[in-house]
Amino acid sequence: MKKPVPVSSANRLINHGPVILVTSQYNDARNIVTLAWNTPVSHSPMLVAIAIAKNHYSNGLVTKSGEFVINVPNVDLLKQVQYCGSVSGRDEDKWKKSGLTAEPAQKVKPPLIRECIAHLECKVVKTTPSGDHSLFIGQVLAASAEEGLFDEILNTDNPRAKTLHHLGGDFYTVPGKKIQP
Amino acid sequence: MKKPVPVSSANRLINHGPVILVTSQYNDARNIVTLAWNTPVSHSPMLVAIAIAKNHYSNGLVTKSGEFVINVPNVDLLKQVQYCGSVSGRDEDKWKKSGLTAEPAQKVKPPLIRECIAHLECKVVKTTPSGDHSLFIGQVLAASAEEGLFDEILNTDNPRAKTLHHLGGDFYTVPGKKIQP
Repeated sequence: MKKPVPVSSANRLINHGPVILVTSQYNDARNIVTLAWNTPVSHSPMLVAIAIAKNHYSNGLVTKSGEFVINVPNVDLLKQVQYCGSVSGRDEDKWKKSGLTAEPAQKVKPPLIRECIAHLECKVVKTTPSGDHSLFIGQVLAASAEEGLFDEILNTDNPRAKTLHHLGGDFYTVPGKKIQP
Repeated sequence: MKKPVPVSSANRLINHGPVILVTSQYNDARNIVTLAWNTPVSHSPMLVAIAIAKNHYSNGLVTKSGEFVINVPNVDLLKQVQYCGSVSGRDEDKWKKSGLTAEPAQKVKPPLIRECIAHLECKVVKTTPSGDHSLFIGQVLAASAEEGLFDEILNTDNPRAKTLHHLGGDFYTVPGKKIQP
């Protein structure tokens, strides 16, 4: 079960730097892409930035539709995360091959990925070229997280909230214990 | 001891989403600011993006100088990280109060922080407003890491490479074990 997260706290679903699965849709074409390169960029309004390689299929879908969804996978989805970052949606239907399940979003057309633990539904407000990538800045219109995982912060001590953090190649790490100064 | 990291691999010093300490300098004024909001945004050229609140002291220093350094702290610097993200450089000399040590960079004027485990020296190539923050896109001119911590990827299994990942408030987490699909 997913519960709404206030948009004003949505940055805290990705504040610690996890890999995300971005879903996009333009007309009947839709795709999933794994992105390590993402960050919140404003509190008010709540904005997030994602970098997608210029030649990637999702780049065109996000450009044309002006929408995307950030889905936060946990460690149980490691194989799907690696897969969705390794092949092109031009060549394969990643939804079918990954076994991930599309679910309607509230505010945008691209679907959510049911198996992920959190979602940020975004409308593109600015696109800026950045070298071999495009940087899409999206305003968060709605956010949600699996029940019991988010209370002011994402509780990464919960085994369900072990997000994936991409070191490079096929190496990842997951959060250890929460700490405070 | 620090060793050079090829600029073409510099993204892998921050690819997994750690908190960074950004140093900036304009004439005699210099500052340190803690930033969770950062990400690589291009491979070729190697570009990174950092978001700094518009009213923050470091925003003006980076804007005026066109340079910044990303320093990667490890868990041993948790108190300094929290401190440098909690006060303004307009009010306090964070270098003095934190006890962190400035060291000359190779390619830019802002100093490195000796106690950090990795550094990316950056020249601003583009600035774009993003809500209540400015997004500075910097080209990496030089990078380095503590000896023994970087070999193709950052070895977060090494106790010295336990980076900090900001969940919100004063909550952080550190990397657990490296994993592969």
